Amino acid sequence: MSPSSPITSGPNCPVPRTKHDRVQLGHGSGGKMSAALLRDRFLPHFMNEVLTKLGDAAIVTLDAQQLAISTDTFVVTPLEFPGGDIGSLAVHGTLNDIAMMGAEPRYLSVGFILEEGLPFDLLDRVLRSMAQAAEAASVPVITGDTKVVPRGKADGMFINTTGIGVVDASFQPAPGRARPGDAVIVSGPIGRHGIAVMAVREDLEFDVEIESDSAMLYPLVRLLKECVADQVHVLRDPTRGGLASALNELAIGVGIELDHAAVPIPEPVYAACEMLGLDPLYVANEGILVALVTAEGAEPAVQALRSHPLGKDAVRIGTVVEDHTGMVVLKTRIGGTRVVDMLPGDQLPRIC
Amino acid sequence: MSPSSPITSGPNCPVPRTKHDRVQLGHGSGGKMSAALLRDRFLPHFMNEVLTKLGDAAIVTLDAQQLAISTDTFVVTPLEFPGGDIGSLAVHGTLNDIAMMGAEPRYLSVGFILEEGLPFDLLDRVLRSMAQAAEAASVPVITGDTKVVPRGKADGMFINTTGIGVVDASFQPAPGRARPGDAVIVSGPIGRHGIAVMAVREDLEFDVEIESDSAMLYPLVRLLKECVADQVHVLRDPTRGGLASALNELAIGVGIELDHAAVPIPEPVYAACEMLGLDPLYVANEGILVALVTAEGAEPAVQALRSHPLGKDAVRIGTVVEDHTGMVVLKTRIGGTRVVDMLPGDQLPRIC
Repeated sequence: MSPSSPITSGPNCPVPRTKHDRVQLGHGSGGKMSAALLRDRFLPHFMNEVLTKLGDAAIVTLDAQQLAISTDTFVVTPLEFPGGDIGSLAVHGTLNDIAMMGAEPRYLSVGFILEEGLPFDLLDRVLRSMAQAAEAASVPVITGDTKVVPRGKADGMFINTTGIGVVDASFQPAPGRARPGDAVIVSGPIGRHGIAVMAVREDLEFDVEIESDSAMLYPLVRLLKECVADQVHVLRDPTRGGLASALNELAIGVGIELDHAAVPIPEPVYAACEMLGLDPLYVANEGILVALVTAEGAEPAVQALRSHPLGKDAVRIGTVVEDHTGMVVLKTRIGGTRVVDMLPGDQLPRIC
Repeated sequence: MSPSSPITSGPNCPVPRTKHDRVQLGHGSGGKMSAALLRDRFLPHFMNEVLTKLGDAAIVTLDAQQLAISTDTFVVTPLEFPGGDIGSLAVHGTLNDIAMMGAEPRYLSVGFILEEGLPFDLLDRVLRSMAQAAEAASVPVITGDTKVVPRGKADGMFINTTGIGVVDASFQPAPGRARPGDAVIVSGPIGRHGIAVMAVREDLEFDVEIESDSAMLYPLVRLLKECVADQVHVLRDPTRGGLASALNELAIGVGIELDHAAVPIPEPVYAACEMLGLDPLYVANEGILVALVTAEGAEPAVQALRSHPLGKDAVRIGTVVEDHTGMVVLKTRIGGTRVVDMLPGDQLPRIC
């Protein structure tokens, strides 16, 4: 399933058994509870070779053509926020999952659930934004479906998108391909999406408005492919659960060492996190990617990313190591180290 | 978009302008209000060649391979009903949309929205049923996503499925291919799904329990392809809005004449409809198909369908005519005729 529903983050990151007999909010967090739900409830029913790979998208072959397929449902609240809305988010989120497989997104399907009473002017704004995002990505919406449920049976609107992309046989980054010595690179500053959404939801005012980073990442992937294709081992967009959860999911058979001082955290995000008691490492992003690249490819990869506006702040933030397999360890600014675990449940619910 | 969201039912079946400034329940009905919503709100944003064909599924080409892609969101209430549940329905519904393009369903993605507090035993039953339906159809679930929303923000669970199928270049039935003289064939008795769901929802007891007909229809499509491929002009599964709405959508540049006496309506469905004040022609089906087949191919098509348990009650129920273009006319049992229009809004809300 998608990164939002990781099965586990390696043998050393144990996922607790489900202790509940009902769905809890934390099961939607993208953290350990999500992983437990997926492992204990979903996968036992749907075991097959493709699904259990649990990449950002599934790869299937039809005749000779390999396709990347990804689905994501968006339940973000509020529906509009600085820098985006549920419509643009639903386009970017799914296309990014395709892009993280190294594949070129080509088609999108859309399924809407509308709550009775949703104002048409809000619906129109969301649809316009969605169409603009799809147009900018050169990916047409080719089929769709709309359902309406009575007042109080949904929350405004929910959107599912499913994307189809074309796999490049010669460029297939994948979780599990991380190797000791790889550089950990992030394409831009972290935490903007989560804080932008939270600020509107909680009606917080900051000196500087923080905008979601929501964006379609394939242009960055294409640059990496063109410049350093054979050096790129893994790509991932650190969405729900933030950078910390994404890296935990990638620490498969290896460890990851992060240099806290190098992690780009915008000052306003940092300040907002302080105020809200959040750790920016766990705050959702929707427009940055993490790349695990050979040591040799690291500098060219950073330069390639920086050649595009979306990647202008790209920077190396850590290294894949042989030690502490399955764990992400942070070297703090004052010289200490601490383990960056996956969160059990929600830090920020309904962020995407 | 899918048949559940028809844009219009031909030039002679006018769709009223949207009079509302908010989403109404009727916008989810599959009737004229749905068509208006799609035409006035959605399509203006997403115009492209593939989408505006509004078939049961979209057909796209990746390299030389043509694919059929369809998405559907399921919001049926209650989640379980005689003959099925939201899980099996979500598999059958989407795979059938693929099959109606003559394509062979191959892969399925699934997106869940779960309400906080949903009992795990219910979730497990739905997932098991879903897995069995996918297994029986030989179509693996290859990717998925799960979101959780707080209590009161969804209604138990909603499921989106997106299906991908392989198009057979030599067998492409499509809306718009109906020709005067074509026979209208239905593969089995109508009205069972809608009445089964309604009976549980309203806590009605009948002498004979009515089960949903929910089933995957590709086996019937394959039989038609093998026996009378070049005689089959149009296939459609008459779901939301029932047989009447489906035929209205197919009356493109032609008229359709139905012989009421020939339409197979099970006695218990008929009795339940009498009691509930419903017209069986508008009640949803999830396991029958309508085929428009040349006069010459009609009898072989009926025989082909009858060779499979799902089609054992297949029967010819009418004829495509040159007259009353865009309209469906019913020859009643007592010798009269009446126009069978599309409903404006809901007869049975949340039936799929």
